[in-house]
Amino acid sequence: MKYAKIISSGMYVPKKVMTNAEFEKLTMFTIDPYFSDVIGINHRHISEEWETPTYMAAEAAKKALARIGMKPEEIDLIIVGTDTPEAVSPPDAPRVQYLIGAHKAEPLAFNVNASCANGALMLDIAARYIAMGDYKNVLVIGTYAMTKFLSWKYSWEALFSDGAGALILTASDEPGFIGSVARADGSWWQNWGIYIGAGTMNLAGFERGLHKLDLRAAYPSTVNEEGWPMLINKLMEKYNITKDEIGMIFFTQVRKKTIEKVMETLGLPIEKAHMIMHKYGYTGSACVYMAYDDAFDEGKIEQVKGKVVIFLTSGVGYQQVATAFRI
Amino acid sequence: MKYAKIISSGMYVPKKVMTNAEFEKLTMFTIDPYFSDVIGINHRHISEEWETPTYMAAEAAKKALARIGMKPEEIDLIIVGTDTPEAVSPPDAPRVQYLIGAHKAEPLAFNVNASCANGALMLDIAARYIAMGDYKNVLVIGTYAMTKFLSWKYSWEALFSDGAGALILTASDEPGFIGSVARADGSWWQNWGIYIGAGTMNLAGFERGLHKLDLRAAYPSTVNEEGWPMLINKLMEKYNITKDEIGMIFFTQVRKKTIEKVMETLGLPIEKAHMIMHKYGYTGSACVYMAYDDAFDEGKIEQVKGKVVIFLTSGVGYQQVATAFRI
Repeated sequence: MKYAKIISSGMYVPKKVMTNAEFEKLTMFTIDPYFSDVIGINHRHISEEWETPTYMAAEAAKKALARIGMKPEEIDLIIVGTDTPEAVSPPDAPRVQYLIGAHKAEPLAFNVNASCANGALMLDIAARYIAMGDYKNVLVIGTYAMTKFLSWKYSWEALFSDGAGALILTASDEPGFIGSVARADGSWWQNWGIYIGAGTMNLAGFERGLHKLDLRAAYPSTVNEEGWPMLINKLMEKYNITKDEIGMIFFTQVRKKTIEKVMETLGLPIEKAHMIMHKYGYTGSACVYMAYDDAFDEGKIEQVKGKVVIFLTSGVGYQQVATAFRI
Repeated sequence: MKYAKIISSGMYVPKKVMTNAEFEKLTMFTIDPYFSDVIGINHRHISEEWETPTYMAAEAAKKALARIGMKPEEIDLIIVGTDTPEAVSPPDAPRVQYLIGAHKAEPLAFNVNASCANGALMLDIAARYIAMGDYKNVLVIGTYAMTKFLSWKYSWEALFSDGAGALILTASDEPGFIGSVARADGSWWQNWGIYIGAGTMNLAGFERGLHKLDLRAAYPSTVNEEGWPMLINKLMEKYNITKDEIGMIFFTQVRKKTIEKVMETLGLPIEKAHMIMHKYGYTGSACVYMAYDDAFDEGKIEQVKGKVVIFLTSGVGYQQVATAFRI
């Protein structure tokens, strides 16, 4: 059995910025100081028309390839995770494969959708492909263009920002990938989403506003505040990971205070939860790869060499996945 | 390492039927005898408004569970494959988890999208989850509601039919899963799809008709006629499978004459390619699981016990995946 090792990362962030003050002016809601202090977000990056999900994904992937001097044709598998796809069909992944110039090598390329749980899930899937020995280099990309689905009239829409993050994994004889745990509960499916689809992709669906992100009923804070520590504890137990071994945890960057509370519950110092929402806003499927890339560039990954790094991602539907790697 | 074994199957087919004659009347195109003879399709099943992708998926899954007396809470992972999703976000999978009554057990549930290559791909992913020992029972479901995205004005739209197919895999100490091969080429991405998505999910996108399935440029017949035998040969070589060992191949049910030509190229008798398009039309992500279920009920799976069964699925984007199991 082979172990998946993370060997590179890259990200793409649109240049256009909207501050909280600008958001307040647009929506007539007062979101600060709450959004800056509790959510941790004081501005957002908004993709231009030409900054589509596959464009941003390809740019992040190109940076990850360039960082280690890897050629696109060395990639054996491309997985794209998003719940803001460029099209209903085909999936984004083969388009990204083409945009990075990998199509002549014909690597398998497919999309996954576990909404904002995509980050840890794709690492899990990639690691299991690598484990069996027939896939060597796997490119995983989270891409997020949620501002393209906003109505710009609700206060909670201040959360969203666009961007893409990419990681490259390769087969190794040593860990690498330790393992994963996950949970999902579809009884929450109708609460929050973009509900246009088969059967409603028509004028009536548009008139009902189903093509916009819709918060119909709030999730209770316990889903993440209790669910995340439960999942981390389950992961530690399943793979005999001690608290001291944990070098860093990359959580879905959805709310600063939640991450602080979760780290407190776990009895871990907040410094071990690298956060980026103050820099890039909330970027859903992309955020944990962007956080890894940011931590890498700050030299923080180097500092936890030999330790365990955990990705915990959580998304509407809902699904929660935690994946552990020895770095 | 554990091997994934297929232990059950189920399907769901909408009752409402449209014959080729009715299609001709509606579109003013003459599609017969070509569609009946060459494509192999003489009628199609059309989902009612309430027969949504997740409803059909859940009904197929319930039949697969009932066939072996398995309880929903015994399922450890649910993967749904579709390019006709019920919503842009969340994915269909957690909704299906809820509809079959599995949500209290909280099994991981996510969507994949490799368009009509989903069938073999989901088996590949499921088998790799099972291989590592921490997932025992995996439910894979292909669901297809493409008639909900049709304009009912092009002759090629006669292809499409709705339905769902489900397989259950379980961990075993003997094969089971042998392995897989795949290829993709995203330079064909823009040819055929439902192109509404991030950035075009607006009134202008609707006015351009992007919410309808659009055949913008035909794929050359060689993509399947040459690609499929190439992939089967690669699979046989990679896993030392001889021609005599092949008991059955389930191909994407998109064109009868293509399957006949591919079997001829491979030097295999046409009886080993079980076809269902004359019964159920073309059901995309669902078709190979529906074909397995149909073959099972006809006693044909029992007849190939000990032999190799191959699933070969192929979809726009494009992606092609072939997965082999010892039955």
